[in-house]
Amino acid sequence: MGDGFADQLGEAMGGARVLTDPDLMEPYRHDRTTWVTPGHPRAVAFAETTAQVSAAVKVAAANGVPVVPRGAGSSLCAGSSAMDGSLILSLERMDRVLEILPDDQQAVVEPGVLNADLSVATAEHGLFYPPDPASKAFCSIGGNIATNAGGLCCVKYGVTRDYVLGLEVVLADGTVFETGRRTIKGVAGLDLTQLLIGSEGTLGIVTRARVRLRPAPEAAATMAAFFGDLGAAGRAVAAITRSGLTPSLLEIMDQRTVCLVDDWKRMGLDRDCAAMLLAQSDAPGAQRAEEIARIGELCEQAGATYLAVTHDPDEAEALLQARRLAGPAIEQRGIAVWEDIGVPRSKLPELIDAVQAAAARRGADVYVFGHAGDGNLHPTFLVPHGDDDAMARTLEAFDDIIDVALELGGTCTGEHGVGRLKARHLEREVGPVAVGVMRSIKRALDPQGILNPGRWL
Amino acid sequence: MGDGFADQLGEAMGGARVLTDPDLMEPYRHDRTTWVTPGHPRAVAFAETTAQVSAAVKVAAANGVPVVPRGAGSSLCAGSSAMDGSLILSLERMDRVLEILPDDQQAVVEPGVLNADLSVATAEHGLFYPPDPASKAFCSIGGNIATNAGGLCCVKYGVTRDYVLGLEVVLADGTVFETGRRTIKGVAGLDLTQLLIGSEGTLGIVTRARVRLRPAPEAAATMAAFFGDLGAAGRAVAAITRSGLTPSLLEIMDQRTVCLVDDWKRMGLDRDCAAMLLAQSDAPGAQRAEEIARIGELCEQAGATYLAVTHDPDEAEALLQARRLAGPAIEQRGIAVWEDIGVPRSKLPELIDAVQAAAARRGADVYVFGHAGDGNLHPTFLVPHGDDDAMARTLEAFDDIIDVALELGGTCTGEHGVGRLKARHLEREVGPVAVGVMRSIKRALDPQGILNPGRWL
Repeated sequence: MGDGFADQLGEAMGGARVLTDPDLMEPYRHDRTTWVTPGHPRAVAFAETTAQVSAAVKVAAANGVPVVPRGAGSSLCAGSSAMDGSLILSLERMDRVLEILPDDQQAVVEPGVLNADLSVATAEHGLFYPPDPASKAFCSIGGNIATNAGGLCCVKYGVTRDYVLGLEVVLADGTVFETGRRTIKGVAGLDLTQLLIGSEGTLGIVTRARVRLRPAPEAAATMAAFFGDLGAAGRAVAAITRSGLTPSLLEIMDQRTVCLVDDWKRMGLDRDCAAMLLAQSDAPGAQRAEEIARIGELCEQAGATYLAVTHDPDEAEALLQARRLAGPAIEQRGIAVWEDIGVPRSKLPELIDAVQAAAARRGADVYVFGHAGDGNLHPTFLVPHGDDDAMARTLEAFDDIIDVALELGGTCTGEHGVGRLKARHLEREVGPVAVGVMRSIKRALDPQGILNPGRWL
Repeated sequence: MGDGFADQLGEAMGGARVLTDPDLMEPYRHDRTTWVTPGHPRAVAFAETTAQVSAAVKVAAANGVPVVPRGAGSSLCAGSSAMDGSLILSLERMDRVLEILPDDQQAVVEPGVLNADLSVATAEHGLFYPPDPASKAFCSIGGNIATNAGGLCCVKYGVTRDYVLGLEVVLADGTVFETGRRTIKGVAGLDLTQLLIGSEGTLGIVTRARVRLRPAPEAAATMAAFFGDLGAAGRAVAAITRSGLTPSLLEIMDQRTVCLVDDWKRMGLDRDCAAMLLAQSDAPGAQRAEEIARIGELCEQAGATYLAVTHDPDEAEALLQARRLAGPAIEQRGIAVWEDIGVPRSKLPELIDAVQAAAARRGADVYVFGHAGDGNLHPTFLVPHGDDDAMARTLEAFDDIIDVALELGGTCTGEHGVGRLKARHLEREVGPVAVGVMRSIKRALDPQGILNPGRWL
């Protein structure tokens, strides 16, 4: 190719695969945020070891080439979309579960391990790794750490941040070091692990992670409840939260989403409802039935018009499918433009109302669903392929919804990240001083500014 | 006093109380780490508002005077002991619970609020703030945040870090800003909240905190189990952890501690045991009895020689007293030198053995107790008042124990902090690169190095 940079890379990385052919690089330009246009990278390199990551970063630093770290490419915030002239450093081949320690309930993994593959590996030991993004089948642990990913069972078990004990990290100058600890508790020095989680590849590149595991719960009991108005669904969520019960899943879908899924799969859902709540309990033994029954009672007291409870795994799976198919039902008809906003839980009904109103005002086609128990919703827009006008209206509504979330004391991103997608909203949310502090930390750790630039720092 | 600095402070802080008389400053020189000799401060100032904290920091920065922030002075790592020539900035008068939001299960507090006072304020709403250091009656939330404090119920509910959503912070140049959010989940930018938690006042001074609350659990069921050897107690802890049960307390005491407490209070404890385990379940309703019974079965299967279970609050209190009185029983006889080490849970019996051996080798008088469920122990030495020789032997054993913890893959501090006490152990634990990264962050946020110097950065 005659590209000196790629030659240097290949040599420094000990013969690792390096691409410079535009056609071959094409799949690595963009991530899942298809509505954000990516740049044109200079090279794509595939690291298989920490030493190769370090070598690649050193070559990039010496040449002043920005590095875009890339896991499975499933980002929904344009967190790993290419910048012009950048090196895409793929970690997808670093996909080994290195160690599982059943007695300490820990695993050590490389960043390219898919979330679902870690589930399989831990299940053999009767353990599980709780963070479960809806994308778990095709997202990697490295990306989960970069964005502090959440998921369906966060409402009981917390997010990625709660399960990472330590990291191996390659800094902007290629230095390799470890953060964190092997103990459950520890307060030795600044918590660099916590600082790196959610930093979206801007401070360092994670090459290994030590994560906490938990004993795998038994099969869950499942409830679906339908409500005639959003306020009643909101009251049910509040009552469940207040009760001290610990549902392992508490999801909401609005009427349009219920109908869209039902149109596609004919699941017999209540198309007249304003909202559907799904809840699960994975409490041990007899507690499970008791807990799901109590959750159902609270839904009825809040005004649920129809309730279904099941302990049968197949029936449960069918109910959960309604929620899981919300995204695919949209993608099956066009481009899905995913939102990821959060509000204090008490503002949930107000948020859903405002989202629907904003979409109607802009003439955008929105479906509202998400993690009711955490106040974190994914209003997702359907844009017909090739309809530029609809995309323009949608992106206006997208911003309106962020305004609404911020006005309600919420966040522009609950679990997907800021990336390039929401870079301009960051300062509005956290304020200029906080952004200044973040920038000073970025400069301290990456003075050249080569790690994942063009995002929010 | 003719001290221009104090006059400047008094004026800038709008008439706040400022002390310069050595006799009056004496109680503010040291914290609870009585075996570390404090320096002589230049002044002690009592802030009552964020604006006063900011003003004080600006005056200190202008004069190049180091600032030692001080909450309730309960540090066990010499985290708030005076440096020569420093300004002690007391936050004890910023002691208001500003807001309790029952629907969002959040509270907003000033840093001088005592942990126990927050418990009282939240209980009125049927809520609780889980982190419960043994010192909760006399430690403040600000100090809890500075050290990421844990406590007895961490094993189920997690540590301070898990309950802080956002902070108001005064930076080293006096700038005031807010970190964090009001939502349960959020990933907007670097997580400055998490970076500040556990930073021991070295990056900024916390003047307000937004914390998460949980529904208050019902009264707990309690179990005490006695074991003939440490290995059996360790196996019981491992079995309970593996079971998926969620005890709300899981504490251990070694034979010497059991006998010391029994000598003092004649509680009828089994003085022949090698170790005593205490467990509680606060699960709702009928689940509680089931859970504590299962925990008891696991203790018996692991070889417990005697077991007591109670659902009576007074009897439970009597059992818990045995654990709570471990510290006071030592302090009642002399100086208590508190250790705070952690190991992976599987190493617990090995750690206790090694601690006892190290103390015997040095001729030091150690009592081992702590948070078995987290692998976090507080071997505490008894040193007779005025016995310099015993103190010297004890401090040698103190270091030996840190060596043991690090050799077992553990930490020199699980929840008390590094402070001045363990400053020289930090790099041994986290390595030179991590310390370098911490220092570069410190320089970025506090280039003059005036915030709580002489600790570990």
